[in-house]
Amino acid sequence: MEDLEGGVDYLADERKKAQFDVNAMKIVWAGSQHKLQLSDRMARLVASDPEFKKDDRVRLDRKELFKNTLRKASHAWKRIIELRLTEEEASQLRFFVDQPAYTDLHWGMFVPAIKGQGTEEQQAKWLPLAYRMQIIGCYAQTELGHGSNVQGLETTATFDPETDEFVIHSPTLTSSKWWPGGLGKISTHAIVYARLITDGKEHGVHGFIVQLRSLDDHLALPGITVGDIGMKFGNAAYNTMDNGVLRFDHVRIPRDQMLMRVLQVTREGNVVKSNIPRQLIYGTMVYVRQTIVYDASRALSKAVCIATRYSAVRRQFGSENGRETQVIDYKTQQNRLFPLLASAYAFRIVGDWLSWLYTDVTKRLQANDFSTLPEAHACTAGLKSLTTSVTADAIEECRKLCGGHGYLCSSGLPELFAVYVPACTYEGDNVVLLLQVARILMKTVSQLGSGKQPVGTMAYMGRAEHLLQSQCSVQKAEDWLNPDIVLEAFEARSVRMAVACAKNLSEFSNPEEGFLELSADLVGASTAHCQLIVVSKFIEKLQEDIPGEGVKEQLQALCGIYALSIMGKHLGDFLSTGCIKPKQASLANDLLRSLFSKVRPNAIALVDAFNYTDHFLGSVLGRYDGNVYPKLYEEAWKDPFNDTAVPDGYHEYVRPLLKRQVRTSRL
Amino acid sequence: MEDLEGGVDYLADERKKAQFDVNAMKIVWAGSQHKLQLSDRMARLVASDPEFKKDDRVRLDRKELFKNTLRKASHAWKRIIELRLTEEEASQLRFFVDQPAYTDLHWGMFVPAIKGQGTEEQQAKWLPLAYRMQIIGCYAQTELGHGSNVQGLETTATFDPETDEFVIHSPTLTSSKWWPGGLGKISTHAIVYARLITDGKEHGVHGFIVQLRSLDDHLALPGITVGDIGMKFGNAAYNTMDNGVLRFDHVRIPRDQMLMRVLQVTREGNVVKSNIPRQLIYGTMVYVRQTIVYDASRALSKAVCIATRYSAVRRQFGSENGRETQVIDYKTQQNRLFPLLASAYAFRIVGDWLSWLYTDVTKRLQANDFSTLPEAHACTAGLKSLTTSVTADAIEECRKLCGGHGYLCSSGLPELFAVYVPACTYEGDNVVLLLQVARILMKTVSQLGSGKQPVGTMAYMGRAEHLLQSQCSVQKAEDWLNPDIVLEAFEARSVRMAVACAKNLSEFSNPEEGFLELSADLVGASTAHCQLIVVSKFIEKLQEDIPGEGVKEQLQALCGIYALSIMGKHLGDFLSTGCIKPKQASLANDLLRSLFSKVRPNAIALVDAFNYTDHFLGSVLGRYDGNVYPKLYEEAWKDPFNDTAVPDGYHEYVRPLLKRQVRTSRL
Repeated sequence: MEDLEGGVDYLADERKKAQFDVNAMKIVWAGSQHKLQLSDRMARLVASDPEFKKDDRVRLDRKELFKNTLRKASHAWKRIIELRLTEEEASQLRFFVDQPAYTDLHWGMFVPAIKGQGTEEQQAKWLPLAYRMQIIGCYAQTELGHGSNVQGLETTATFDPETDEFVIHSPTLTSSKWWPGGLGKISTHAIVYARLITDGKEHGVHGFIVQLRSLDDHLALPGITVGDIGMKFGNAAYNTMDNGVLRFDHVRIPRDQMLMRVLQVTREGNVVKSNIPRQLIYGTMVYVRQTIVYDASRALSKAVCIATRYSAVRRQFGSENGRETQVIDYKTQQNRLFPLLASAYAFRIVGDWLSWLYTDVTKRLQANDFSTLPEAHACTAGLKSLTTSVTADAIEECRKLCGGHGYLCSSGLPELFAVYVPACTYEGDNVVLLLQVARILMKTVSQLGSGKQPVGTMAYMGRAEHLLQSQCSVQKAEDWLNPDIVLEAFEARSVRMAVACAKNLSEFSNPEEGFLELSADLVGASTAHCQLIVVSKFIEKLQEDIPGEGVKEQLQALCGIYALSIMGKHLGDFLSTGCIKPKQASLANDLLRSLFSKVRPNAIALVDAFNYTDHFLGSVLGRYDGNVYPKLYEEAWKDPFNDTAVPDGYHEYVRPLLKRQVRTSRL
Repeated sequence: MEDLEGGVDYLADERKKAQFDVNAMKIVWAGSQHKLQLSDRMARLVASDPEFKKDDRVRLDRKELFKNTLRKASHAWKRIIELRLTEEEASQLRFFVDQPAYTDLHWGMFVPAIKGQGTEEQQAKWLPLAYRMQIIGCYAQTELGHGSNVQGLETTATFDPETDEFVIHSPTLTSSKWWPGGLGKISTHAIVYARLITDGKEHGVHGFIVQLRSLDDHLALPGITVGDIGMKFGNAAYNTMDNGVLRFDHVRIPRDQMLMRVLQVTREGNVVKSNIPRQLIYGTMVYVRQTIVYDASRALSKAVCIATRYSAVRRQFGSENGRETQVIDYKTQQNRLFPLLASAYAFRIVGDWLSWLYTDVTKRLQANDFSTLPEAHACTAGLKSLTTSVTADAIEECRKLCGGHGYLCSSGLPELFAVYVPACTYEGDNVVLLLQVARILMKTVSQLGSGKQPVGTMAYMGRAEHLLQSQCSVQKAEDWLNPDIVLEAFEARSVRMAVACAKNLSEFSNPEEGFLELSADLVGASTAHCQLIVVSKFIEKLQEDIPGEGVKEQLQALCGIYALSIMGKHLGDFLSTGCIKPKQASLANDLLRSLFSKVRPNAIALVDAFNYTDHFLGSVLGRYDGNVYPKLYEEAWKDPFNDTAVPDGYHEYVRPLLKRQVRTSRL
C-alpha cells in the first residue's frame, strides 16, 4: 500500500520470498474487490490528510486530547459531506481516523436503537435530525451498580397520566448511568434504559429518548446531572472519549419519547404489546456482536502486522553470513506469532460468515421464522467472547514479541491494547456470554434423544452417538492435513465435553445449583464449541473456489496452524475425552512445526495482504519499509520532553540534593 | 491496617467469616515479625505524608509527572536522612512511595555494580559519593539494537596507551544506549558496558564508569549526546522515569574507570585476569533475579487484593435475601481469582526461599565452591521467567475480574499492569531464560547414566528411573490432598517431558539445529520444571512449624489450589506423559472446587494479611472499607476535566456542526 517514493524498502527481500499472489489475498482479506477498493480509498484519504495526524496524541493531556478528538470528528464530518460519501464509505472513513469519538456512539448505537426500537413515526421524527447531526445521541444503559444484569437496572420511568409524561428518575447512587460513551461532555440526547412503571406496576426495562443538554448553550437541562467519569486505561486510547455519568432528578419527557416499536404505553397508561415480535431485539444483538467479531480480526491483524514486520527486521544472537539471526527465524517466535497470524485470518473468515448469518436471520425474522434465532444468538454470543478474549491477549503477546521496544508508545502496541481490551467486557461480559452458550448446549444435549435435530452450528451434535465413539485415525503427521480428520476431532471433543457436563449436572437435584457449581466446566465446554465453529468455517472457506496463485495453499497452511495450535493449547480436553491419543498429539506437534516453515517465507506478504497504511498502523516497529531504528531514534528527539536538556524540577529537587553535604546518614 | 476512624467497614461481615489468625498470617507473609513491623512502619510513614499523595498522577502530562517524581524522590531522600533510616528501611520507604524514579537505578543497579565489579580502591573512591548522592548513577547496558544478546553490544572502549585512557565510542546508530532508567535527564554518571579493545584485540564486554553530565550546570559533557526515549505504556507508570538514549563520540575516560575486579588492563595495555572468579557475576544475577521474584509476589498480591475485595463488594444477578449475589460467590469468579491468590502466596514462599539460596550461594562462592552455581543460576532464571509472566497476565486478569470499572484508572489496575509488564523483558527475556534452563535440563538428563547426581532443585531427576515408571495412585478426590502424591505427579511430568525432549534432540545430527527446531517443546519442559520448584517449595513450607490458629490449614488449601489449578491448565502435559489418568484429572477438578469453597470465607482475610495501606493499593475498588461506589462517584467529579460543563473545543468543533443545515448528504 505504500509508495516509498524513492525510499528504500528494507523488507524487499522478504517480499520477494512470497509464494503466492498478494493482490489476490488482499481481496480475500477485504471480502471482495469492491470492499478492497473502498477501504483502500478511505484509508488513503485519511492517511494523506494532515488533519488526521495522530502520532502526537499520546503526549496530550486529557483536555487537549479531547479537543483534538472533537477537531477530527468535525473534520471527518466535513469531508463526509463535501465528498458526498455513502453510509458505508463514511463508516470506513471514521474507522481509519482511528480515534474513538462521540460519533461512534451516535452512529453505532443511537441511530440503530431508534431504527430498531422506534415506531415508524418516531423514526420519521428523530432519524433526520440524527442523520444531519442536528442532535447528537448516546446510549445510556449501564449503571454504576449494574452492567451485565440489564434486568437489574434501577433507573425508573414512571408514567404520569395527568400530564401524559414519563418521569425519569435515579433513585439511588448506584442507579447513576455510568460508562456511556459520548455522554460526559457532548451528547445532546440519549437513549436511556429504565424500568417502566405505570399505575404502580413494573413492566421491565425499556428505552426512552431523553434530551440532556440545551441546543442553545449546551448546558445540562433542569434535573439532569452529567459529567465525565475520569481517566481510563492507557495513553490516549479511550481517553479521547467522554464516557459519562448521568443522574436524573424527576425529569419529565413526553410519552411519545418511549421507544414503542414492541411495547406501547397508551394515553391512559395501558401497556400494550405490539404485533412486532420481541425477538427482533435478539436480531439487533446478533448484528452488534458480529461487528465486534469483525473488529477483533481488524485489531488482531494490526498487532500481528506490527509484530511480524519487526520480527523480520530485528536480529538477535546466532549468525548467518556474519549477521545475527532474524528473530522471525526462531521457532519460539514462530510458535507464538504464527498461531496469532492464523487466528487473524480465522476470525476474518468467521466474521464474514457471521455477516451472512445476520442477513439470513433478518430475512427469517421478517418471514416470522424464529427457528434459527436461539442458535444464531448463541453462536454470535460465543464467538464475540472467544474472538475478543483471544485478541486482547494476542495484542499483548505481540507487544512482548517485539521485545523491549514494544513498550514504547511509538510501537503503537500499548495504545492498541488499551483501546481494545474493553471489548472483553462491553456488549456482554465474556464469561457471562459463554455461560449463555452453555445453557443452549445443555438444552441441545438434553433434547438429543427426543428426535429434535439441532440446527446450524449445533448440527454436529445430531451425530453425537457416532462422535462419542469415534476414533481418530491419524497414524503419521501428514494425516493431520486432512480437514475431515481435524474437524471430527474438534466435533468429538466438543460433544464429549458437553455430554460430560450434562451427565455431571444430572447428579444435582437442583439444576440451577448444579449449573452454578459446574460453571467453570461449562465455560470449558462452550469454548470448545466456539473453537469448533471457527475451525469448521475456516475449513468450509477452503472448499470454495479461491482465485490467485498459491492463495489457497497459504490459507490451508494457516487453517492447519489455527486448528493444531488450539489442539496443543487445549490438549487436556482432547486427551481426557479420548478424542486423540498422546502419539497423535505428538504427530500434530510435528506437523505444526513444518507448517511454520511453510508460512515463514510468506509471513511478510501475509501481513501486507491486510493492506494497512503506516498511518493506520501508527507503529514505528511495523513500518512498511522496515526502516525501524533511524525512525525510533528520530521519534525520541521529537518528544517535547527533549526540548530542554535540563528538565523542569532539576533546580528545585535535584541540584540541592547533589550539593548537600550529608554527614549523619546511617546508610 | 486501616484505622477507619469512625467510618463504616462495609467488609466487616466478610472479615468476621475468617477461620484463621490474620495477624499470624501477616507475619508469614512478611517473613518475620521484624520485617512486618519494619514494612508496616514505612508504609504508614509514606501513607500519612501528603507529599507522597499519588492519586492525581495519571492526569499529569509528562513534564509535570516527571517533576512530580523528582519532588517525591527528593522528599524521600530528605526523610531518609532526617530519620536516619538504615539501608533496609530506606529501601522499604522508596518501595512504598511506589513511583519509579532515577533513585531506583542509582541504588538498585549503579551502587551494586560498583560493589560487585569494582576493585577495593574503586569502591573506596566511588561508593561514598554514591551513598551521599553527590553523584547519581545509572546502568547503561542495553542498546537500540541489542537487548538479550549482551555479547553483541556494539559500543567500544578502546585503550589508548599514549594517554592512559579509554576511548568510549558509539560506532553505529544501533549501538546507541537505549532504555537505561535515570539516564535520560538526571544521572550524572553511568556504568557503561562496552567491548574492551586493547592493541587492536577484543576482550569481551566490560563495565566502565563514565561521567555524563557536568556537576555544575547539568549539561552533557563534550562528545556525549543524551536524551529521553519518549512516552511508554500506560498512565503515569514508567513515564515517571527518564529512560534514556546515549551516544558517545570518542569520549575519553581515565583507565581506572574500568571496573577491574575480575579483569584488569595495565598501564601498558595488557589484559590480566584477577584471581577473583568470574562466576561472581552469576552470583549478582542470582541476587537481582531473586528480588524480581519477590517483586512478582508483591505486584500480584496487590492486584489480587483489589480484585478480591471488589468481588466481595460487587453484586450481580441472582438473589439471596432480596439482594443480588456477591460476585465472589460465583464459581467462575473463584476459578479465575483463587488460583491467583494462591499464586501470590506461592511466589512469596519461593521468593523467601530464593533469598536463602542467594545467601547460600554467596557463602559457597566465598569458599571457592562453585558446585551449586549452575543449578542456582538456572533455578533463579527459570523462576524469574515463570513468576513475571504469570504476574503480568494475572494483573490483567484481576482487572477483568473487576468488570468494566477495572478499566478506570481509579481502580489502580491499569497503572499496575503497565508498570509491571517490563519485568517480562528486562533482566533476561522470559523465553530466552527458559531456553537457558532447558540447556541445563538437557545436560542433566544426558549425565543421568554417568553416576553424577543432580543437586538442589534438579535432585529429583536422580530418581528418573522410578519417575518414568511411576503410577499415580489417586482413587478418590481427597487423595489429591496428599502432598507426596501431588509432588510425584509434578516430578514425573517434568522428568518425562525433559527425557522426551532429550530423546527427540538425539535424532538430530546437529545438536544446535535440534535445539532450535525443538525450542518450543524445550520451553514447555522448562516451564514444567519451574512449576515443580514452586510446588515443592510450597509443600516444604508446610512441613515447618507455622504458628497461629488455622494458618497452616489456609496455606494447605492454597497450596492445593496452586498445584491442582496448574494441573488443570497444563492437563495435556500430565495426560500425554501418562503421569495421571483422565479419571484422576476429573477427581482433581472436583477437589479444586471444594478447596475454593474452603477458601471463600477466608478470602478477604487472606488479602488483608498482605497488610497494604489504601495509599499503596491506590485503588478505589480495593479500598479496605469496601465503600466503593460513593468514592468512585466522588473521584469522577474531582477530575479537572469536569471543571467546566462545556468542554474546550465545543464552540469550534461541535456547535457549528449542530447548527449546520446539511442538504446534500448521501447518508
